[in-house]
Amino acid sequence: MIKIPDNQVAGHQAGDGKLGPLVDGLGRFYKPLQSDERGTNEVAFYSSLSSNTRIPGHICRFFPVFHGTQLLEASDGSGLLPHLVLQDLVSSRLNPSIMDIKIGARTWPAQASEDYIAKCLERDRKSTSVSLGFLITGFQMYGSKESGFWKPHKKFFKGFSADDVRLVLRKFVSSNASGDFDVDPDCAFASVVYGGSNGILAQLLDLKAWFEDQTLFHFYSCSVLVIYEKELALDGSSCGAEVKLVDFAHVVEGKGVIDHNFLGGLCSLIKFISEILTTPDKCQTEVRIQDSENNPFSSGNGADG
Amino acid sequence: MIKIPDNQVAGHQAGDGKLGPLVDGLGRFYKPLQSDERGTNEVAFYSSLSSNTRIPGHICRFFPVFHGTQLLEASDGSGLLPHLVLQDLVSSRLNPSIMDIKIGARTWPAQASEDYIAKCLERDRKSTSVSLGFLITGFQMYGSKESGFWKPHKKFFKGFSADDVRLVLRKFVSSNASGDFDVDPDCAFASVVYGGSNGILAQLLDLKAWFEDQTLFHFYSCSVLVIYEKELALDGSSCGAEVKLVDFAHVVEGKGVIDHNFLGGLCSLIKFISEILTTPDKCQTEVRIQDSENNPFSSGNGADG
Repeated sequence: MIKIPDNQVAGHQAGDGKLGPLVDGLGRFYKPLQSDERGTNEVAFYSSLSSNTRIPGHICRFFPVFHGTQLLEASDGSGLLPHLVLQDLVSSRLNPSIMDIKIGARTWPAQASEDYIAKCLERDRKSTSVSLGFLITGFQMYGSKESGFWKPHKKFFKGFSADDVRLVLRKFVSSNASGDFDVDPDCAFASVVYGGSNGILAQLLDLKAWFEDQTLFHFYSCSVLVIYEKELALDGSSCGAEVKLVDFAHVVEGKGVIDHNFLGGLCSLIKFISEILTTPDKCQTEVRIQDSENNPFSSGNGADG
Repeated sequence: MIKIPDNQVAGHQAGDGKLGPLVDGLGRFYKPLQSDERGTNEVAFYSSLSSNTRIPGHICRFFPVFHGTQLLEASDGSGLLPHLVLQDLVSSRLNPSIMDIKIGARTWPAQASEDYIAKCLERDRKSTSVSLGFLITGFQMYGSKESGFWKPHKKFFKGFSADDVRLVLRKFVSSNASGDFDVDPDCAFASVVYGGSNGILAQLLDLKAWFEDQTLFHFYSCSVLVIYEKELALDGSSCGAEVKLVDFAHVVEGKGVIDHNFLGGLCSLIKFISEILTTPDKCQTEVRIQDSENNPFSSGNGADG
């Protein structure tokens, strides 16, 4: 029953003899334990999270449930390997649309090695991590029974500008989404997915309030998953919009200081999503015009003349 | 009438034939224009700020008033130099206590040169900039007519830990403050300086709300000044608590993205100050014990046994 997950949108993926996560189709997700300190660190994080009574219930829901570790035949055929046993976040979903967004301008903890820091810094400066405080690392979008899923290759995300990120966050909640950048996204599902009292924005704001206060953990290189179901969204009622946090191999102790790096990136993402809700009909071209008007160092004359 | 300011706590200082800011005793502060792009940049920022109608009035109050530039005899005797003419923020104050806090984990804009970035990054990692998201660069505290001001040398701030920062933020609002780290600060003025509807915390929260929304500017290497008057605080009523922003040589266009770097650091500072208000009687030792209890990776057994 153990198989390669259908709905993974970023990270190491099993298949073609490679090592990656597995699922059992019964609600459990098996993530191979990285053999270095990253593996130990992620187990330590999940263990401390499970036993920590200071984390409020409405925050616990953002994390996958942890079921310990288990030896399992690795997906690359290398034999038995320890795996984290986690809740499969999408096992109960029919055709989930999912986006993986790595949060934080800085992906390295202060105590990392010089080599690791240099490598991260170079990557983060080339991506939108440093400029926007977050990075879209992958997504899949359900189209229809006929078209199935649109799941761009990771090359698609290379060299993204702020405008590309704006556009993709709009496409993600549009009924006419495709890889064609000339088609203006209609943002048909924006109000039900991003908006509303149980929508993505409300959940991100709930998470933000916790990050303004919590000093237990600093989350480096951790991702927010944004999940919804298009078929439910078409029904018009609930779309199953859900925010989850994943990837804790680089979590370190907060030592009484808030995670200002994660919080800053989260606030930046919140601002991008808020703008879609306040101007859902803005197409890409209009967004670009608005940008040039927003240049604070230019005189305002151009707008009048 | 032009003279060296009495109340400068950080940055280049005039005196001993060095180049630094001057004041006229009539409410104006003259800052020598740096000859490279930093000077041009700071003038451009103040000009755009003055003419920008999208900045709300309650936010404008955080910035010094800008009166253009003026040629003035430089403090180092090098002849006439262009100076920024700014509001002297403390000319109406009798004996102001002032702290300069540089905000942001990252002090370099993305478009800076490789050399500049490397230099900043090394400095920021050694200081509390990266770890806390802000850095105390200097302060002066008024003691009494007899003792005058306590104004530690910049060496005092080298190698500060999070606990040192906690302690100094407490000392800054204490009646028994001194360079002796064994004396527990009494936080006598915490509630009037940091607290209250017009206090420092309320002003920082007001600033934070703007930073969650504004996408006009990114403020690198910019400082928050915290100002109050002890003699007024002793009266018990208002203490003239005031937050100001200074140093805009490294401000760049926001281009539609929030300043997540400044915002994150500001939220971290807000958390430190909030903690002083909720636990004003915590001395340094108590804070340290609390820290070890807050270790999320340790079991809770130690506290019971």
